Amino acid sequence: MKKIINDPATVVQDALRGLAAAHPDLLRLRADPPVVVRADAPVRGQVAVVSGGGSGHEPLHTGFVGPGMLDAAVPGPVFTSPTPDAVQAAIGEVDGGAGVLLLVKNYTGDVLNFETAAELAEADGIEVRTVLVDDDVAVRDSTHTAGRRGVGATVLVEKIAGAAAARGADVRRCAELAQRVVAQARSMGMALTAPTVPHVGEPSFELGAQEVEIGIGIHGEPGRSREPLGSAEEVVRRLLDPVLQDLPFETGDEVLLYTNSMGGTPQMELYLAHGIAERVLAEHGLTVRRRLVGPFTTSLEMQGMSLTLLKLDQELVDLWDSPVHTAALRW
Amino acid sequence: MKKIINDPATVVQDALRGLAAAHPDLLRLRADPPVVVRADAPVRGQVAVVSGGGSGHEPLHTGFVGPGMLDAAVPGPVFTSPTPDAVQAAIGEVDGGAGVLLLVKNYTGDVLNFETAAELAEADGIEVRTVLVDDDVAVRDSTHTAGRRGVGATVLVEKIAGAAAARGADVRRCAELAQRVVAQARSMGMALTAPTVPHVGEPSFELGAQEVEIGIGIHGEPGRSREPLGSAEEVVRRLLDPVLQDLPFETGDEVLLYTNSMGGTPQMELYLAHGIAERVLAEHGLTVRRRLVGPFTTSLEMQGMSLTLLKLDQELVDLWDSPVHTAALRW
Repeated sequence: MKKIINDPATVVQDALRGLAAAHPDLLRLRADPPVVVRADAPVRGQVAVVSGGGSGHEPLHTGFVGPGMLDAAVPGPVFTSPTPDAVQAAIGEVDGGAGVLLLVKNYTGDVLNFETAAELAEADGIEVRTVLVDDDVAVRDSTHTAGRRGVGATVLVEKIAGAAAARGADVRRCAELAQRVVAQARSMGMALTAPTVPHVGEPSFELGAQEVEIGIGIHGEPGRSREPLGSAEEVVRRLLDPVLQDLPFETGDEVLLYTNSMGGTPQMELYLAHGIAERVLAEHGLTVRRRLVGPFTTSLEMQGMSLTLLKLDQELVDLWDSPVHTAALRW
Repeated sequence: MKKIINDPATVVQDALRGLAAAHPDLLRLRADPPVVVRADAPVRGQVAVVSGGGSGHEPLHTGFVGPGMLDAAVPGPVFTSPTPDAVQAAIGEVDGGAGVLLLVKNYTGDVLNFETAAELAEADGIEVRTVLVDDDVAVRDSTHTAGRRGVGATVLVEKIAGAAAARGADVRRCAELAQRVVAQARSMGMALTAPTVPHVGEPSFELGAQEVEIGIGIHGEPGRSREPLGSAEEVVRRLLDPVLQDLPFETGDEVLLYTNSMGGTPQMELYLAHGIAERVLAEHGLTVRRRLVGPFTTSLEMQGMSLTLLKLDQELVDLWDSPVHTAALRW
């Protein structure tokens, strides 16, 4: 294993200390259990939006803490759910009296632990709503999941729910909007290489020299098939076809296209794939109104990419466009 | 070679088409020779700032085109200088009558080709100034370079010169500020893995399973030494010590700390290293006033990192803070 780390046992805490040092204006680190909290939390009278999950997908979720997006992110160990008490601590840090919205990727551990934390918070008199993100069309019932996995759409849900909260929407309304994004978003990913979890020390799986995995999960969970790496054109179509068919997206739809690097794929390849995806969507009669291109939902150093489509309406466009100030997204 | 591409011969053009499709509000692509131009160029009466160089270092330079930074970026083939006529075409696209500032990383091919283009533009009556960036303290006279190589500081030079141009500084003043950043910035990098140039198809060099190269160039040029990978603490000190000694940076200095991923290093490791660098600088009595953390000066999918320090004064801080709207930097 070749990594710039000190000790696999402290890698998450060490990275969080660096994040906090880099962005003192945006966030602070609550230690043990670690929670990344918006610097000015709690914001009185405003719904607090909280997400989290296993570490290793950065900037998801810690890089999205700040005005217009998340009030707190709860980072678990690498690829491992945060504990209920960590989630509960996050809720306690950010509750401003208007309720808390929990955004949870659909993995069994996350779902259970966030649910337990929600019950504990509600017992303390805090109104909590939870929205599960399950946008991955690749497989149903995976290694860590009953139902579909939550992947790229999580970024879009966090941005839009956070914008609604910043505009003063109540917790019921924030949850409805988050749920609408989940209902209208679909994703699929692929990998060229495997990630290496620091405390494991070996790649999570093995692929042949010219083999890729289509439909990979963001923890390296099995996808739909292993096959020879084709051209970028073929890769993009292999990802987009099931995404388009699933919702289904139809001629005339306006969409947000999110082209995501799994971490190790360089920007040149990512934009190249994005350009192909724009062309394929035009062929299908879709209009791309908004774009996000970059490594935002990653799997450590895994090379690969995913494509997420979100069907837009004017309200979602306005919320997407509204100001955000976080380490990883800012406008 | 495992890459998401169609054809090694068209990879740069294909990626540029994707970049243009993703950011129609910010930039447009002038084809053959390819130049990425700010969407609203030329800006009448404002100094135009132009940079460029071999592709494969994205977002440098194409991701920095937009208000407050570059008016044009000239992308050569992967790791290969753009031709004089491409640079000349860029100058022609963006000249707004107030002169053009060329920011050139110190590699022999870039220096010659930008110089030729500058002479051609001056013959056309355009006032051109050129500033060479040579911040890499690792080695003197490298594979493609006489003198020091230009690496991470290029991003800082482009931001600060672009801000000065946006504020209405004349071309002489923009060049002076760019030169001041060059004079006050130092960098050093390291690699854990090698990049693979698409048209070559094989890694640029070989490293042992636990071996790293300290002082690597952004094209994989030799650094100072190959050695066993130590802890992140050791890596950061191996990079920072020569950087600190070179200027030299001294107790009481205020600095911008730029922690850069070479492309394949995940954010977790990068922030971890950044946190250590902040601590080491504090030990030396330096105050970190501004930070940049991310993959901004890359070498395709190479894993590794670099650290750049810029000695700040209030004018540089103000220019750094002034608005920028590009694909890769925005505030």
